[in-house]
Amino acid sequence: MTDYDASGTGGVATNETGALIAASKVEGTNVYNRQGESLGSVYDVMLDKRSGKVAYAVMSFGGFLGMGESYHPLPWSILEYDESQGGYIVDLNKDDLEGAPSYDDGTNPDWSNPEYSRGIDDYYGVRRPML
Amino acid sequence: MTDYDASGTGGVATNETGALIAASKVEGTNVYNRQGESLGSVYDVMLDKRSGKVAYAVMSFGGFLGMGESYHPLPWSILEYDESQGGYIVDLNKDDLEGAPSYDDGTNPDWSNPEYSRGIDDYYGVRRPML
Repeated sequence: MTDYDASGTGGVATNETGALIAASKVEGTNVYNRQGESLGSVYDVMLDKRSGKVAYAVMSFGGFLGMGESYHPLPWSILEYDESQGGYIVDLNKDDLEGAPSYDDGTNPDWSNPEYSRGIDDYYGVRRPML
Repeated sequence: MTDYDASGTGGVATNETGALIAASKVEGTNVYNRQGESLGSVYDVMLDKRSGKVAYAVMSFGGFLGMGESYHPLPWSILEYDESQGGYIVDLNKDDLEGAPSYDDGTNPDWSNPEYSRGIDDYYGVRRPML
């Protein structure tokens, strides 16, 4: 590894969490909007097996002790980690989330249907690369 | 979404788990070698924040009731899901794992050091794209 050129990733490596983060650490991380309001927390992370990319962060929203929560899949690319708040920032307000694709506790979307994920991407104006 | 062309992903969508899988579902999934021997199970998934890609599956290996386990980060690209076994297949034997980068229960590698992950990639002969 002596031929390793640190310039490519050295900057990233100097920040608190580095270039890599455990999915288990992402789960439970708070999600805030640009106004600093807490929108929810990351409940799960959806991985795209074709591209090997992180496709969505499933944000849990509302609820009490896990009851009556709703889940909002957010395209991973719209989440931005903020060291100072120790959470993710998304440029969304609560009204945006009200109209967004979501599902209730105890139900599960049909992730095997590409049109479901396409609907999420369309709502947030994101296009995931197809491999 | 009426303009959606299913031909790109329809085939993937017809398999059991579809194109997307939850990190929480990956965690706990058994890992087998080509001989069908169980090597361990996926303990965590490491995400590359720069590329948005799944970088490693951290496989727990050995141990009893979570005590004395060791953890082997495996490049995500060497794992191949096998529907029939309901687990991941890697082309490794236990000797390969003995010599592989690993860490013990209760310790944590320095994921912020790019040379650590580079050492894993080198061991398995994998090169992750730098963005």
